[in-house]
Amino acid sequence: MKEITPCTHRVAYYETDQMGIVHHSNYIRWFEEARDAVVRDQGIDYRQIEAGGVLMPVVRIACDYKSAAKYGDTVRIYAYPRRFNGIRLLYEYEVRGEADNLIVTGSSEHCFIDAASRKPLNLKKRMPEYCEALSRLVETVNGGKE
Amino acid sequence: MKEITPCTHRVAYYETDQMGIVHHSNYIRWFEEARDAVVRDQGIDYRQIEAGGVLMPVVRIACDYKSAAKYGDTVRIYAYPRRFNGIRLLYEYEVRGEADNLIVTGSSEHCFIDAASRKPLNLKKRMPEYCEALSRLVETVNGGKE
Amino acid sequence: MKEITPCTHRVAYYETDQMGIVHHSNYIRWFEEARDAVVRDQGIDYRQIEAGGVLMPVVRIACDYKSAAKYGDTVRIYAYPRRFNGIRLLYEYEVRGEADNLIVTGSSEHCFIDAASRKPLNLKKRMPEYCEALSRLVETVNGGKE
Amino acid sequence: MKEITPCTHRVAYYETDQMGIVHHSNYIRWFEEARDAVVRDQGIDYRQIEAGGVLMPVVRIACDYKSAAKYGDTVRIYAYPRRFNGIRLLYEYEVRGEADNLIVTGSSEHCFIDAASRKPLNLKKRMPEYCEALSRLVETVNGGKE
Repeated sequence: MKEITPCTHRVAYYETDQMGIVHHSNYIRWFEEARDAVVRDQGIDYRQIEAGGVLMPVVRIACDYKSAAKYGDTVRIYAYPRRFNGIRLLYEYEVRGEADNLIVTGSSEHCFIDAASRKPLNLKKRMPEYCEALSRLVETVNGGKE
Repeated sequence: MKEITPCTHRVAYYETDQMGIVHHSNYIRWFEEARDAVVRDQGIDYRQIEAGGVLMPVVRIACDYKSAAKYGDTVRIYAYPRRFNGIRLLYEYEVRGEADNLIVTGSSEHCFIDAASRKPLNLKKRMPEYCEALSRLVETVNGGKE
Repeated sequence: MKEITPCTHRVAYYETDQMGIVHHSNYIRWFEEARDAVVRDQGIDYRQIEAGGVLMPVVRIACDYKSAAKYGDTVRIYAYPRRFNGIRLLYEYEVRGEADNLIVTGSSEHCFIDAASRKPLNLKKRMPEYCEALSRLVETVNGGKE
Repeated sequence: MKEITPCTHRVAYYETDQMGIVHHSNYIRWFEEARDAVVRDQGIDYRQIEAGGVLMPVVRIACDYKSAAKYGDTVRIYAYPRRFNGIRLLYEYEVRGEADNLIVTGSSEHCFIDAASRKPLNLKKRMPEYCEALSRLVETVNGGKE
């Protein structure tokens, strides 16, 4: 199985709250950074998807907080694309601290819509090449045919 | 069953992203506003909990996006405290639009920790009065003995 | 001089940082809420401006922090449109606490651009009616002819 | 004059607004990241300052928007500590795009307070070592004695 390159993120002061830890909503944002990074690693730039008139909204998010990241920590966010059929895309996440300690796990599910009509679409028909690359990535991550 | 007073929120421009809708992480923040509002309605001010040296971190979040709120919309966020045993507290949420349309549903689970030691605690022992008020609220919301 | 209706904002937990006060970037966001509110009060909905293909980006921001708002505080944000010539619009702000104490003062300057070409435009030519209403508001705020 | 190492920041999707550019409040947050980076480069970790019971709140912010960063851009944020007397610290900033194009300039002024009493303090008395390091950095940035 090919190793996923995590996204590295240094925790900013503005990401903390008065509990003295990262506000829990920020992990959801970090998931987004990691999604970007993992596909960019495959030569897929989400800006090109949008330029092609396709948006990828989130339809479901889940997040389990095991511990908490703190200001100044350098965390790694792993985004694993797990399931993809052209219509729905599922990611799983791990946020890990400097000692490889697990901070947060999570998942997100996405659909694809036309930017103008806001109607759902099948990426296989609309962007077959990107679809192909994404399918290969999912296969690789899942320890597939490679 | 007593009706829950929702929290009203006008969607700010800074809450949108370039998809032209509210960024999905903001609903998680709105849940927090609604949690605050529903207990405040019962005479419970979360500031007093913190002043008593107790923090209430989030241990799990889930969110289902049915549609999307937009800049300028006035949404209502309903927070229903559903389960509470002194150690864990479960909330369920609904975000509704101006036509009472369902935009988002979600849930969050919380524990209680000592602000100094960061160790978990049982609110029944630490703050029995607040615990009592919270239990009554959960019962009411669930259509209980009242 | 007509009194400006302030925007009321209850400070959310997610707006704090680990200093135990509102993170300073949030006041800049509150200014935006107050700009919205003061023109809406005049029957001007910024959504209509955007629907007309005009955007109003910020070209300058300044903010003086006198004290700090805290979680749970209800603050009022006053936005005073001070100068407007169809090309540039200047706002001044005051954020005040529950005892009418001054927390923050600030200002922002805006221009108008075409949403498609991103070129600057004169609102007098593009949206004379909105321009007129805005000019009247500035005059009123400045204690003008009214 | 010693060259300042800029802070590199890849613009996240969640930092955009529906204008299709970075929301203007985020530059204020990036300034903070760059302040952190420039002192860290000198072996000063702001976490140690806070651990010593000293906070460094912002007392003034200014920002001039020349153009706009976009999702996916990699920007560099330069923070130049310009004036420091133990009581006040002034930073100037530049945010630059991939073609070294100037996107934003700005400044921030800070004071130092005791974390417990929230009273202003003179860093020369409280943390002479850190104060010394900071003074040297300011001198270097300003093309001083070095």
